[in-house]
Amino acid sequence: MDLSGTTVALDGLGVENGFEVLTEGIRLAAADGIGLRVFGPGSAIDASGIPGVEVIETTDQITNEDDPVPSVRSRPDSSIVRAVADVAAGNADAVVSLGSTGATMAAATFGLKRSKGVKRPALAAQVPLPGRVTVFLDIGANVEVRAQHLVQFAWLGASFSRSVLGVERPEVGLLSVGEEAGKGRDEVVEAHAALLGAEEFDFIGNVEGRDLPAGRADVIVTDGFTGNVVTKALEGTVKTVVGAISDAARKNPLSAAGGLLLKPALSGLRHDLHPDTTGGAILLGLRKTAVVGHGSSGADGVANAIRLAARSARVDAPGLTEEMLHRVGVNRGAIGSNPDV
Amino acid sequence: MDLSGTTVALDGLGVENGFEVLTEGIRLAAADGIGLRVFGPGSAIDASGIPGVEVIETTDQITNEDDPVPSVRSRPDSSIVRAVADVAAGNADAVVSLGSTGATMAAATFGLKRSKGVKRPALAAQVPLPGRVTVFLDIGANVEVRAQHLVQFAWLGASFSRSVLGVERPEVGLLSVGEEAGKGRDEVVEAHAALLGAEEFDFIGNVEGRDLPAGRADVIVTDGFTGNVVTKALEGTVKTVVGAISDAARKNPLSAAGGLLLKPALSGLRHDLHPDTTGGAILLGLRKTAVVGHGSSGADGVANAIRLAARSARVDAPGLTEEMLHRVGVNRGAIGSNPDV
Repeated sequence: MDLSGTTVALDGLGVENGFEVLTEGIRLAAADGIGLRVFGPGSAIDASGIPGVEVIETTDQITNEDDPVPSVRSRPDSSIVRAVADVAAGNADAVVSLGSTGATMAAATFGLKRSKGVKRPALAAQVPLPGRVTVFLDIGANVEVRAQHLVQFAWLGASFSRSVLGVERPEVGLLSVGEEAGKGRDEVVEAHAALLGAEEFDFIGNVEGRDLPAGRADVIVTDGFTGNVVTKALEGTVKTVVGAISDAARKNPLSAAGGLLLKPALSGLRHDLHPDTTGGAILLGLRKTAVVGHGSSGADGVANAIRLAARSARVDAPGLTEEMLHRVGVNRGAIGSNPDV
Repeated sequence: MDLSGTTVALDGLGVENGFEVLTEGIRLAAADGIGLRVFGPGSAIDASGIPGVEVIETTDQITNEDDPVPSVRSRPDSSIVRAVADVAAGNADAVVSLGSTGATMAAATFGLKRSKGVKRPALAAQVPLPGRVTVFLDIGANVEVRAQHLVQFAWLGASFSRSVLGVERPEVGLLSVGEEAGKGRDEVVEAHAALLGAEEFDFIGNVEGRDLPAGRADVIVTDGFTGNVVTKALEGTVKTVVGAISDAARKNPLSAAGGLLLKPALSGLRHDLHPDTTGGAILLGLRKTAVVGHGSSGADGVANAIRLAARSARVDAPGLTEEMLHRVGVNRGAIGSNPDV
């Protein structure tokens, strides 16, 4: 996808690996022709010589230690609030932050507004494992949900899968403790029943935890508590297993030689498994695109977060989502906004 | 631990890999001196020549397709119901099944009874990753819980960790979406507050998904929906990553040679990661020990499920748990059975 001509507002504070890594990520994304408006300290982010990048002086950072909602409300000069306001004002097409997830979600929800009919925006990740890309949501925006929210998440995920990832007719699964329609919490059982009527995507029914790393669906839906815990457990497991294998390869000269011989064959896998590859999570259900990258991103992670936002903005994923919700009646009460569900 | 003299009632139906694998597992466990009363078809399970093993003719199997509770109630001749009844009658010290988890939980809960004061038995797994053994519960007995149940799970897990795994003063974490006490679902926040007063174990507060594979605690507590999904996602992720590495090692002669050189160093890791190593899950909160092994177990998995049950029975883990609950007042309403929690 040609991303030139798209402009991204970047919250320039909060990258754990420092401003040099951030700047290198900016350089990589700018090389794709993406315009960038970076809210951060000009003294630390040297964008001179990178075409299409402007640094707008900002130094107030809302951190993970701050309570997101009151902080966003009371600190209009903070980098995330200013970056969001820049999108709302029409100066940029999408916002990206690698800082506090909570603050980014709060700022984006207040500043960019929900799409018509959307009850709860959801945070969606792409599972960083080999094989089919699986969009997994909600990974943390809503720790408690009702069935209607899960139903909407299915539509939000399917729309993203189609418009940004190019899956014409996504297969959507609902995460539960068994494949049978009656398995799981009450809201899951109700959402299952409501999703059976879905057109425009293939509802494949309940899926289980093991289906997530197996790439069994294009979209897997769950609540933000389960999604958050599973996503972090999955990332941690990859890290633990890969780390244990590296340790084994250092055990003695023979296994070290083995590790060396295997290295080229493993490089693709290492790339697939790295959190930087997906560019982070995207907040779905808003009128404009907002992306939350990993705080621990390297330069590739920074660039991929910016690219993800630019792709979503380029195809107007939020607009297509709102259109789809309107077409199928999700925002008129026909599916998923039934108060009984 | 010397396990001779302990007798386990084994549900001999439901092992996916067939009766030969089951019989080999029985042989391995019997070699440790564990007595076995196997409920299954004598024609298929040939235990002649294995000392201490008796096969009791049973052919009715409750499968994953059957609804557990009505099936257990209406089929007294099924292998799992007979194996449980054998323990209740005092002929065996613990029950093991490698068949339907739902049927085993239902049969054991009805037949072995809950310990005094226990509201909800919980299914506990040992996370199959290198490093510290983490007891993880509930992995599927209770899809919806209240705070008091989570609190009891902490005590059940801590008691198991101490009595069976020998951890004198277990560190116990509560799974949530952030480390702060206020993070997570309402019942998690309430359980956190109630656990702060716990003596006899160290409550380390909330832990996150990434802490599970990192071995950050001896016991990690969650509800049965989240626990089930996370456990299956974790097992699936290990399988996917290990499979992808094996694929890479087959790519070309050079990497195949590398894989070969690494093999000895990886064998310990492969053992740690294999689901068979933990022997399956244990149902905590009952008056006698019940273990549910993986249906897909190999002979080692069968033997380890039997050994886990025998260890628990040998130290009278259920009795020690009941004693602990009584001592700290969990079963008198002082902690965790407060209806307001």
